[in-house]
Amino acid sequence: MVGLPQPLQQLIASLSRLPSIGEKSATRLACFLVNDETGVGQQLLDVLARAKGEIKLCNTCFYYSVKDSCQICESTSRDSKLLCIVEKPVDILAVERLGEYKGLYHVLHGLWAPLRGQGPEKMKLKELIDRVAGGGFEEIIIGTSPTVEGDATALYLAKILAENGIKFTRLAQGLPKGGELEYADDVTLSRAFSGRSVVNI
Amino acid sequence: MVGLPQPLQQLIASLSRLPSIGEKSATRLACFLVNDETGVGQQLLDVLARAKGEIKLCNTCFYYSVKDSCQICESTSRDSKLLCIVEKPVDILAVERLGEYKGLYHVLHGLWAPLRGQGPEKMKLKELIDRVAGGGFEEIIIGTSPTVEGDATALYLAKILAENGIKFTRLAQGLPKGGELEYADDVTLSRAFSGRSVVNI
Repeated sequence: MVGLPQPLQQLIASLSRLPSIGEKSATRLACFLVNDETGVGQQLLDVLARAKGEIKLCNTCFYYSVKDSCQICESTSRDSKLLCIVEKPVDILAVERLGEYKGLYHVLHGLWAPLRGQGPEKMKLKELIDRVAGGGFEEIIIGTSPTVEGDATALYLAKILAENGIKFTRLAQGLPKGGELEYADDVTLSRAFSGRSVVNI
Repeated sequence: MVGLPQPLQQLIASLSRLPSIGEKSATRLACFLVNDETGVGQQLLDVLARAKGEIKLCNTCFYYSVKDSCQICESTSRDSKLLCIVEKPVDILAVERLGEYKGLYHVLHGLWAPLRGQGPEKMKLKELIDRVAGGGFEEIIIGTSPTVEGDATALYLAKILAENGIKFTRLAQGLPKGGELEYADDVTLSRAFSGRSVVNI
């Protein structure tokens, strides 16, 4: 871009790599961020550096936490017989916003996607198997999104986790097929929770 | 938000203050940025810090620059008899992308907006008056957006800059009324340049 200093071009390129930010949005954001008058750029720098330094993953469920164990795993008011497996940390936010589910979580940090060359080794799967073997769960809700990859992962999990006495369920197809759990509205998500079905293995 | 560590909540709040970023987008961006595997968060931190440190405004036209004088003001191939006044630095990007205009620029960094309590003192106006008095311009194109505030600023500028021998023009109303120059498509912007009209003062 003519006349635009290189540091600003690099900032635009870097912002363009963020999800759902195109080149025009990146340009607008970059110009906004280097503008000292608003102070937003400096604040974002500080807050991002702090978040990157302090945020780690919970040792048990792999949700975000500042300590070894996250607030949900540490809570004494959650039902420790109920486990909900989700793909991403933001999926937990959507379920918690609803306020109906009182069990624990496990974040996979990925899905089984053979077409994209992504095998089960990228997911927090070994940790999940150990955790389920450690026991105490009566029901495991597989809360992956109802996409092709989410369906495949759900079946795969139900098979490898199969154990006597544990009921495996999936969120009902109240969720729109092909949609993302993260963006589901509350009514849809609520119906999906109440209509969850047993996985046939 | 339940269970979300405070540094992450602060990051989401900070991202929500950016233009055209809502809470859901901010949440998605924050989770993406604290994810160490992609490396995008750290890269953005470095690039933003560098841009904020190095980018300043050109002493002459107030466009972005890493030196006292920007690339456009320093160029010997521009027509120094022609001046285009714009509101924001990104407006220059839109005009330069077109490649038709070969004159110089002056960035106001604001508009005359009495309804929002924003008077001419916030704009780079004294510098513009001195620059025009310093002379040599044959035509001044007032390239503010065709909004209420852009129209008012254009009239105001034409009156206070009025001098013998200088022709004042405005971009033609090929630009959609109420729209922003920054987002104009190339054909619209090209028509606006070729059909520019004399300001009646």
